[in-house]
Amino acid sequence: MHAVIMAGGKGMRFWPRSREKKPKHLLDITGEKTLIQQTVERIQPLFDWKNILVVTGKKHAREVARQLPKLSAKNIIIEPEGKNTAACIGLAALHILKKSGDDIMAVLPADHAIVNAEEYRRVLSAAIRAAAKPDALVTIGIRPESPHTGYGYIEQGNARETISGKEIFSVCSIREKPDAAQAQAFVQSGKFYWNSGMFIWKTSSILKQIEKFLPDLHAGLMKIQKDLKTAHAAKTLAAVYKTLPSVSIDYGVMEKANNVFVIPASFGWSDAGSWDTIYELMPKDAQGNAVAAGGEAIFEDAENCLVYSPKKMVAVVGVRDLIVVDTKDALLICEKGSSQDVKKIVEKLEAAKKKKYL
Amino acid sequence: MHAVIMAGGKGMRFWPRSREKKPKHLLDITGEKTLIQQTVERIQPLFDWKNILVVTGKKHAREVARQLPKLSAKNIIIEPEGKNTAACIGLAALHILKKSGDDIMAVLPADHAIVNAEEYRRVLSAAIRAAAKPDALVTIGIRPESPHTGYGYIEQGNARETISGKEIFSVCSIREKPDAAQAQAFVQSGKFYWNSGMFIWKTSSILKQIEKFLPDLHAGLMKIQKDLKTAHAAKTLAAVYKTLPSVSIDYGVMEKANNVFVIPASFGWSDAGSWDTIYELMPKDAQGNAVAAGGEAIFEDAENCLVYSPKKMVAVVGVRDLIVVDTKDALLICEKGSSQDVKKIVEKLEAAKKKKYL
Repeated sequence: MHAVIMAGGKGMRFWPRSREKKPKHLLDITGEKTLIQQTVERIQPLFDWKNILVVTGKKHAREVARQLPKLSAKNIIIEPEGKNTAACIGLAALHILKKSGDDIMAVLPADHAIVNAEEYRRVLSAAIRAAAKPDALVTIGIRPESPHTGYGYIEQGNARETISGKEIFSVCSIREKPDAAQAQAFVQSGKFYWNSGMFIWKTSSILKQIEKFLPDLHAGLMKIQKDLKTAHAAKTLAAVYKTLPSVSIDYGVMEKANNVFVIPASFGWSDAGSWDTIYELMPKDAQGNAVAAGGEAIFEDAENCLVYSPKKMVAVVGVRDLIVVDTKDALLICEKGSSQDVKKIVEKLEAAKKKKYL
Repeated sequence: MHAVIMAGGKGMRFWPRSREKKPKHLLDITGEKTLIQQTVERIQPLFDWKNILVVTGKKHAREVARQLPKLSAKNIIIEPEGKNTAACIGLAALHILKKSGDDIMAVLPADHAIVNAEEYRRVLSAAIRAAAKPDALVTIGIRPESPHTGYGYIEQGNARETISGKEIFSVCSIREKPDAAQAQAFVQSGKFYWNSGMFIWKTSSILKQIEKFLPDLHAGLMKIQKDLKTAHAAKTLAAVYKTLPSVSIDYGVMEKANNVFVIPASFGWSDAGSWDTIYELMPKDAQGNAVAAGGEAIFEDAENCLVYSPKKMVAVVGVRDLIVVDTKDALLICEKGSSQDVKKIVEKLEAAKKKKYL
């Protein structure tokens, strides 16, 4: 079986730490290791290095290789351009087919945070077993800790069995990010889970569904498959990729397919999607202030602040609910709860052609 | 006539820009020039370089000389330690007496901000004329723009005359910083002015009052005078200074003396006493955000913020009433209205022996 680490994100929401050359999964924002290093380390007990594939962009391949020195170069799959998750997953499936024939693949985002790695591996193992069933598309659903409106939701159906001690349900529907009232109703029903974006299936299972629901993508993949590992491979890949539809696997396949299953799980998961989320993940002092590793800060009448400043002493005076992120050439001061607006700063920098800050 | 620039301040309130080696008057916080450079430039049309004396501490004399290259070394009077304004003024008076005999001296703080330099000079000229009268102690009172509780106040009496087109009043009382209700009453009465800390008098006039109200200080000054400009000067100065009372000229003399006069003035004055005051002095955009010269900032849903960051791009998101001050090794984030608490940060750094940040 194979693990496919999707490492295509841009992570504009982590500016000024994330830059074009260093998207979120290549940053050490939650600890000493980068998110992609943590992702790979977490699955080490289940997957050999030779069975771990990382799909990434041209710009980031070298840094991926640097951060994962034990990963063979041929296990880094480079997309010529980003085309959302359906294309990424299809391409990875072709590589696995070519390498090992029909096999189980666990598709895992490179940039999530997980607290309890052991429980995570138990869930993943159960999912792998469940995915052995022909045509099964298995997802991991996170038992919601709050009516979060920043996540998609998975609704469980009635069919239920137990695999390796974990319950697994048929999926009744997959929902995009809800509004607050919807989210409240989802959580109260007890039948909805956060969509973790982790998928486990056989290569044959997913390619069949892509053929059914995304025929254009499937046709493109077949062209790529023909030239895979030949001298024309890169040229064909680039030419075909240009034409591929840009669609998420959730919207393109999962929301439409039958035979979707969910394993409810609780292992302390977060998509680590914004500075706000990072604050939630970090240890805090009695006043709720958090200082990222290696940094130094003094608080005077300050509460619930996050300071990320590895090189500089930061003094925070008379302030509540503030995020402070210092880097070599740029500084972010952001109200907590507004950190999704950080991408507006990146857009303004782009519009102003301030490339050195991008 | 002589100008005496008092440059003894520590300016902890401007941390992290002000440090032990660079107190406020040696900083360029309000423009391209430092406050002491602006102070001297402002009086250039009235005073020759040879008649300008700067009184400063040992630690800062070299930087004063660097910032004022036209100032002769012998015009820098070094206090062995800070003993508040009465001693500083007394020492300057001795130097002027030795150099030129009894003469008018205009005592001016090195670290105030003044908008209208021309009007300021008109007022100062009138004050100089008024100070020629035997025993007169002349002050400049700022017509209050608000019931500020951070300034002392001067109450005018009834006696009044006009000198060089400026009204001058006898002074009825001099008050320490009032509480809010008092300040309100002061401003409403129309008879109170902010105490600018600028004093104009003859050396003989002030020494006489010091003798009367601060006899210990006067006795010490007489010992210093005896050895002034001799080989023992520095030794005597250090020995005597240790014993001098540390008292302000306001409390020690002005609050008690008769023959005090005030010239009411409006030339856009501020003591530039905190980052809050600097914000008031700076030009702002339509959202009330101010960016100090040379800095670059992007605001997204931000209002009434001050950004002082000459080297680094600063993005401010979803924030109101914030002061951001970036320096090479330290960063201050402070709510507007709390900038007097900045000195608490300095105290914490001192307590923690973080000398590199002091």
